[in-house]
Amino acid sequence: MQATQPDQLSQTFAALADPTRRAILARLFEGPTTVNELASPFQISLPAVSRHLKVLERAGLITRDRDAQYRPSTLRVEPLKEATDWMAPYRELWEGRMDRLGTHLETLRTKGQHDA
Amino acid sequence: MQATQPDQLSQTFAALADPTRRAILARLFEGPTTVNELASPFQISLPAVSRHLKVLERAGLITRDRDAQYRPSTLRVEPLKEATDWMAPYRELWEGRMDRLGTHLETLRTKGQHDA
Repeated sequence: MQATQPDQLSQTFAALADPTRRAILARLFEGPTTVNELASPFQISLPAVSRHLKVLERAGLITRDRDAQYRPSTLRVEPLKEATDWMAPYRELWEGRMDRLGTHLETLRTKGQHDA
Repeated sequence: MQATQPDQLSQTFAALADPTRRAILARLFEGPTTVNELASPFQISLPAVSRHLKVLERAGLITRDRDAQYRPSTLRVEPLKEATDWMAPYRELWEGRMDRLGTHLETLRTKGQHDA
């Protein structure tokens, strides 16, 4: 039985579900980085970093240079865009709630002033 | 050996890494919903829906009514807010690239008009 390839969005979220992988992406946000440079701040082994990079690469969140000596990794933001697009309505719901709470508190405050 | 509890953000992303769970959240976005109502559009069994709801509940993305007869589930947006906050800089990077591309295309277009 062949395993079904998960959809892109599921792969993106699964790749993000690890604090070390998120820290690696944050480092790559600053520019392309080699495995050695990525490993140094994390207190984890090079093979462990390589395993995380493989997960990120399979999910399309990074590309790795095949030719350069230290194979620097580069961030790909497109899958992250798809993920933030998916979350946008929920964010609006949250922000709407905050707006309504603000209005409610403002009403209470004004009412308090009038009652005083 | 006791497994370490994953951090909230990792739990959120892991819970989102499944198309059925994302569809359940989209349905709950419209309001509290029972297991039966959730199962009907998905062609999956009630126990399968219940397993997905357990994952979402453990991740704090839903709450379930303990008392009401059909235990309706309610969306909790706070963990999603944390997740979108984490993604915000990457979105800005993406949008910055789009802005620069737009400026570049505009320059090419204007140049084309001047050259004509």
